[in-house]
Amino acid sequence: MMDYPYIAGDLLARVRERQPLVQNITNFVAMDLAANTLLAVGAAPAMAHAAVEVEEFVARADALTINTGTMDPVWAESAKLAAKRAKSLGKPWVLDPVGAGATTFRRATPQNLLDIGPAVLRGNASEILVMAGGEGGKGVDATDPVSAVESAVLTLSKDRNLVIAVTGKTDFLTDGARVARLKGGHVLMPRVTAVGCSLTVLTGAFLAVEPDAFLASLGALALMKTAGQRAGERAEGPGSFRFALLDALYRITPEELAREAQIHEA
Amino acid sequence: MMDYPYIAGDLLARVRERQPLVQNITNFVAMDLAANTLLAVGAAPAMAHAAVEVEEFVARADALTINTGTMDPVWAESAKLAAKRAKSLGKPWVLDPVGAGATTFRRATPQNLLDIGPAVLRGNASEILVMAGGEGGKGVDATDPVSAVESAVLTLSKDRNLVIAVTGKTDFLTDGARVARLKGGHVLMPRVTAVGCSLTVLTGAFLAVEPDAFLASLGALALMKTAGQRAGERAEGPGSFRFALLDALYRITPEELAREAQIHEA
Amino acid sequence: MMDYPYIAGDLLARVRERQPLVQNITNFVAMDLAANTLLAVGAAPAMAHAAVEVEEFVARADALTINTGTMDPVWAESAKLAAKRAKSLGKPWVLDPVGAGATTFRRATPQNLLDIGPAVLRGNASEILVMAGGEGGKGVDATDPVSAVESAVLTLSKDRNLVIAVTGKTDFLTDGARVARLKGGHVLMPRVTAVGCSLTVLTGAFLAVEPDAFLASLGALALMKTAGQRAGERAEGPGSFRFALLDALYRITPEELAREAQIHEA
Repeated sequence: MMDYPYIAGDLLARVRERQPLVQNITNFVAMDLAANTLLAVGAAPAMAHAAVEVEEFVARADALTINTGTMDPVWAESAKLAAKRAKSLGKPWVLDPVGAGATTFRRATPQNLLDIGPAVLRGNASEILVMAGGEGGKGVDATDPVSAVESAVLTLSKDRNLVIAVTGKTDFLTDGARVARLKGGHVLMPRVTAVGCSLTVLTGAFLAVEPDAFLASLGALALMKTAGQRAGERAEGPGSFRFALLDALYRITPEELAREAQIHEA
Repeated sequence: MMDYPYIAGDLLARVRERQPLVQNITNFVAMDLAANTLLAVGAAPAMAHAAVEVEEFVARADALTINTGTMDPVWAESAKLAAKRAKSLGKPWVLDPVGAGATTFRRATPQNLLDIGPAVLRGNASEILVMAGGEGGKGVDATDPVSAVESAVLTLSKDRNLVIAVTGKTDFLTDGARVARLKGGHVLMPRVTAVGCSLTVLTGAFLAVEPDAFLASLGALALMKTAGQRAGERAEGPGSFRFALLDALYRITPEELAREAQIHEA
Repeated sequence: MMDYPYIAGDLLARVRERQPLVQNITNFVAMDLAANTLLAVGAAPAMAHAAVEVEEFVARADALTINTGTMDPVWAESAKLAAKRAKSLGKPWVLDPVGAGATTFRRATPQNLLDIGPAVLRGNASEILVMAGGEGGKGVDATDPVSAVESAVLTLSKDRNLVIAVTGKTDFLTDGARVARLKGGHVLMPRVTAVGCSLTVLTGAFLAVEPDAFLASLGALALMKTAGQRAGERAEGPGSFRFALLDALYRITPEELAREAQIHEA
């Protein structure tokens, strides 16, 4: 049995040391918190989405993340260019299909990106279910409990040779062979916008320092769950939770993460 | 005489219970705080503006809000499509004419949207005056005191069969027949960007649970004024006011809102 | 010898009194903090970027700032229109070449804007070096220490008749003749996104009340360094630093700024 909490701590130390440049094509709501999340852990964020430069930027970046939250066809085309370039350069990239299934466009866009082959697919149960061919929820919120989608996720993971992270009260992570569940976090976490999107860019930072996408995702999930739990102890509501989360991401040491992360193997 | 504070509290309880999905076509500055405001009160925010999906999304949403703060002609066209679809589906929608009158484009865009027929028009005195045919202020700030525009607002409300909420030190609300004035808030409120925009999306959430647009607007105004007052007691400046406002929106109970709301009938 | 700290305090008093309207064409990440920064010091922010209105808006504004952080060719064209109009109207404008040099597009866009002639160029060492013809860093972060670029900056300043502010641990400011260095700030400052972008819009506010662009930039730099130092004393991490910075910008008096600013002439 692997010592997953120790690995999570070790990867955090690597992120802090190497300060990877993570390029993000993310949504308008998430840009601020996502950039601040990367800065808080010591990584360097860059937001670059224009078709004219997106491929050239991928060549500079250590990892790429793509989030479909507020896309239009122009942004979707840029995202496709960026994903293809990342693929051809062997750079890891993460897909976050925010709101997948809410409209025809929100069904097609993440599906087209998935076909390019991300290293990691990260979303809530409703979104991941849509990516696996299901009907999905009513928008960008998570209406399906994580446990109900586990078998569909395992199948999708094996079929696509893909690491999938489904986040919710308990996170579920698999690469088709290995499985982990993570506890922690706080009831205020889904009451702050873009926490999931920020986990996605964090996953990009961990992928930049660890080629095993399952372990990299595990580290990012463990860090967010643990920081969320710490933030919850300090918060008096979603406003103070948000700044406390960034403070916690900044302050937590690798040793503390290894001690506090609640990771359960299947 | 209606017990308006009690109604405000009751509507807050309904929002928390039904968790309506509110679609927002809002400006880039406001997206973060607007989404967090909806999450803080228990509603579900969705930002979707692409012409390719905007009508389909309206069909899923419980209410729509449109804010003209950072529009260009492409967004304006999407907003028009969304508003028309909401109208044809009988879904309530709110217009927030941010910066109305500052340029030719900022005069025409909200006027074209107003012609589609929102349930509620929400803005500061300067913006509402422009919508009523006046000259307006110098940008997105409010330069006209609310009381000076009351008669123009009443006329516009009757002519258009429209609920109008003019916000300022004292808020003024009318549907052409009923009138209410709301006190509370805090001197720091206009020193934080997008608080007005957040009130607009909050109005969308209340419209989703109450068909009487006057009462729905009243509930949203009362909640924001009361939460603002609470936040002001805790804040040391506009930075801490912002998170304290979200905390207050999350923590206040329907009973407390009914007790603390300062609503005066005309 | 000029009493620079006293001048900085005096300019802050003028900003608070005159409440200038500052138009900003800035990036998606920075919009929120930039608008809140201007409101915190008592100025009025406006974000307007659509080509259809950008020139008309410049005519209303007291100053213009342009930030190339998340541009595409459409926004770049709008920025050019706005800059040219500001120039022809004699209104001061600031250029912030975020990420200059990271791609071909990010080299050409700020260079084209620079050719229009801003009053002030504000960036980190890496970005300013690119504007001076150098190679630059890996993205939007500052990888070159300020002191290493001083001679290139002086040459660029003289050649272009331009005030240049290079920010870092110690800020470096010159108009080709005068030179100042500013200390203060806090180690958390570069761990919060858009603090540099917010300094840029703040520079716009100071330019609106002081025609000498060197002194105006000095005032904005001194205010941000001093507020950053105050915020650092209160913060437990980058999340709390951000709100504490806005609180400090709001609370500091002109007298306190004059007393606390650490400005050294060359």
